Amino acid sequence: MASIFSRIIAGEIPSYKIAENEKFYAFLDINPLQKGHTLVVPKKETDYIFDIEDNDLAEMIVFAKKVAVAVKEAIPCVKIGVAVIGLEVRHAHIHLVPMQKEGDLNFSNKKMTLPAEEMEQIAKAISEKVVL
Amino acid sequence: MASIFSRIIAGEIPSYKIAENEKFYAFLDINPLQKGHTLVVPKKETDYIFDIEDNDLAEMIVFAKKVAVAVKEAIPCVKIGVAVIGLEVRHAHIHLVPMQKEGDLNFSNKKMTLPAEEMEQIAKAISEKVVL
Repeated sequence: MASIFSRIIAGEIPSYKIAENEKFYAFLDINPLQKGHTLVVPKKETDYIFDIEDNDLAEMIVFAKKVAVAVKEAIPCVKIGVAVIGLEVRHAHIHLVPMQKEGDLNFSNKKMTLPAEEMEQIAKAISEKVVL
Repeated sequence: MASIFSRIIAGEIPSYKIAENEKFYAFLDINPLQKGHTLVVPKKETDYIFDIEDNDLAEMIVFAKKVAVAVKEAIPCVKIGVAVIGLEVRHAHIHLVPMQKEGDLNFSNKKMTLPAEEMEQIAKAISEKVVL
């Protein structure tokens, strides 16, 4: 069965899209740790990040960098934190999280639920900054 | 002033080395979240991971993958988690953390302090598995 991320990429489930190219897709985490928390996923469904073939993994981190640069331009923060956990959804995904302080990249923190209008505004602000 | 990681790479400060090539260096985190917790750093000192030039960043993640494969072979775990925070030491570093469960990649968890002999054994077990 297709993962929830494959269904998002296919447009079967709506998402707040940030950017995509032929191989990767970036969208807002629906329950962000911080405003602007974005996920980057490969379109080719792979469970474990380090099972991704070298060239594709290299392209994925460069794509994630371009998204992270846009997130940082749109969302005031010190740095964009990076995390890959991958024990819930079995489709590799890179978390990009705007950080003010070290504790902001802590997945045991309470997740946010933002109004749809605000998620749309955030997605628009970030996506306008993306240069692929 | 050289970062603590540059001083480790230069051999001025000892480390439990896992692997290195001309551009990157991997060694055990001295206060691991989990046994086998490894850091991957670029030899060229750069503060923020996404300030690293595209080609070098691509090479860095492929190097980190090779190290992560070795960590997973040496340390029984479900997956290797990945994190980049970078608000303490201002020299970009990728954390590779063996995970049994999602909460294992939580930097507010208590860090371990292991005896030197055990750190040496872990470093030896992982480094023997590295294929660059």
